[in-house]
Amino acid sequence: MPTSPSRRFDRVAVVGAGRIGSSWAALFLAHGLHVTVSDPRPDLEEYVTAQLAVLAPALDALGRPLGNLAGRLVFEADLERAVADVEVVQESVPDELARKQDLFVRLEAATRPETLLLSSASVLRATDFSARMAAPGRVAIGHPFDPPHLIPLVEVVPGEHTEARTLEDAAAFYRQVGKQPLVLRREIPGFVANRLQSALFREAVHLVSTGVVSLQDLDTVVTSSIGLRWAAGGPFLTFSLAGGPGCPGDPGGFERFLRQLGPAVEQLWQLLGRPAFDEATIATLLAEEKAAHGGRAYAELGADRDRGQLAVMTALRPAG
Amino acid sequence: MPTSPSRRFDRVAVVGAGRIGSSWAALFLAHGLHVTVSDPRPDLEEYVTAQLAVLAPALDALGRPLGNLAGRLVFEADLERAVADVEVVQESVPDELARKQDLFVRLEAATRPETLLLSSASVLRATDFSARMAAPGRVAIGHPFDPPHLIPLVEVVPGEHTEARTLEDAAAFYRQVGKQPLVLRREIPGFVANRLQSALFREAVHLVSTGVVSLQDLDTVVTSSIGLRWAAGGPFLTFSLAGGPGCPGDPGGFERFLRQLGPAVEQLWQLLGRPAFDEATIATLLAEEKAAHGGRAYAELGADRDRGQLAVMTALRPAG
Repeated sequence: MPTSPSRRFDRVAVVGAGRIGSSWAALFLAHGLHVTVSDPRPDLEEYVTAQLAVLAPALDALGRPLGNLAGRLVFEADLERAVADVEVVQESVPDELARKQDLFVRLEAATRPETLLLSSASVLRATDFSARMAAPGRVAIGHPFDPPHLIPLVEVVPGEHTEARTLEDAAAFYRQVGKQPLVLRREIPGFVANRLQSALFREAVHLVSTGVVSLQDLDTVVTSSIGLRWAAGGPFLTFSLAGGPGCPGDPGGFERFLRQLGPAVEQLWQLLGRPAFDEATIATLLAEEKAAHGGRAYAELGADRDRGQLAVMTALRPAG
Repeated sequence: MPTSPSRRFDRVAVVGAGRIGSSWAALFLAHGLHVTVSDPRPDLEEYVTAQLAVLAPALDALGRPLGNLAGRLVFEADLERAVADVEVVQESVPDELARKQDLFVRLEAATRPETLLLSSASVLRATDFSARMAAPGRVAIGHPFDPPHLIPLVEVVPGEHTEARTLEDAAAFYRQVGKQPLVLRREIPGFVANRLQSALFREAVHLVSTGVVSLQDLDTVVTSSIGLRWAAGGPFLTFSLAGGPGCPGDPGGFERFLRQLGPAVEQLWQLLGRPAFDEATIATLLAEEKAAHGGRAYAELGADRDRGQLAVMTALRPAG
């Protein structure tokens, strides 16, 4: 394999052309790569072309137009032909173990031995879906936060047999296309972002399903406080700054936060809810959701959110 | 009492001039109100004046300069004189029950009967700290998300004896000064924002203290994914949109999300950590925090974060 970190990438295959695969394709094209999209779906070219048209304005707004696609975008239903000559495969087929195991055996056979094999898997472990390969060292998970063309984070997660160089090359690849790769130290269900997200969502479900606030109000609480904070600084930085600058006899910062407010935080942890998605809870949530968004079309809700999302990302772009 | 919702407010007393009280004073001044600041601290005028100078650039950047303070900002160490003629008291003294109970008895005696008595309390209940008043109907909590001059959310929380009109007037008052008030349906420890924040923070502490990611990387995960998302749309909207637009036989949206992904979310909930702030965990967190921020001064970290914060808020301002 070539030496990291100088490795640059030019030819990528996107395997699995659903919503996530199309979003990856758009991102790679917007960063000048040659992209082969492979999927057995009969409407492959039509579907992906339509998706690219939908995603193009956001990429334009971020200063990353798709550019001239002639000669850089190829559709190839045949998997083996699609991946024969690429440096990276980004796989985004559904998370079904047997199917993914088959696919990775075929990828191993059809690619060159130095090709990175990256999976968008969000539930399956790389150790498991690469289990039938002869040499799974070049397999890793590269899990995007939805949607890949927009949100910077990619969680890079090793399987038990992933080589260190694969993780370095994967991180270099994602940085090359403008992403923020985060290499996890080990496999853990849900990785980091989804675990954090689901922890907050659990309490959100508790507060709405027990009638403390409406679903609409809960979303407003988040966008008018925590979300704004965490777009600019993570939870540890937030609490470090909350500890104050310190002075003689007072360490300030995170240590003061932990010593002074830690016990109150621990006490609150004991009070957090433990809801379940039983039918009564689902019914309450769906009624609340209807009250919040009922009169508005899906496309309109999404367009509003995406406008806000682009504004936030454009605002933060110069800083990082 | 006057009729809601047409009530407008002009004269406010800020009682308790620490960091939070000074931030409230800055916000009220930037929205043209007459503000009396009261605190027995001997350096009252000096301290608050210095704080206002620190906060002024952020308010300028948000298009809300402090303006001409002559005749609109008064310092009055004597509590009874400070509140005698105001329409709203915003109280921000430390959360100690006996002290706050005494204070609210004095506020009841010294204010006019229609004056709103609002408390920044984050731990104590309005029912408890108003317990020694003759008529606690005009008391409510107006809890800011730190810092009040910048972050829009104010959680308005009733005590058992709070009148409905008090909640309406408090919400009107906070809207008048550009805040996003959220009236809770009932008292609950930690209110909404701090419960949500602490739920995510619990998992963050778990993931860092068990070595899955570094503290620095965890913060980066949040700022490069969840934080960006939740600045533009809350968790329920996010998951409603994740459910897709729907089609014949598929409800799409939040219902599809709950039915299809609900079980996986529930499963993840069972795996979330339950850390405690024992000495070993505190030592790990402090070492991680030192590795993340050790070389940088508190003021520099804070200035960086605040620059990002202002950029995000300026970007979102036209939309809301």
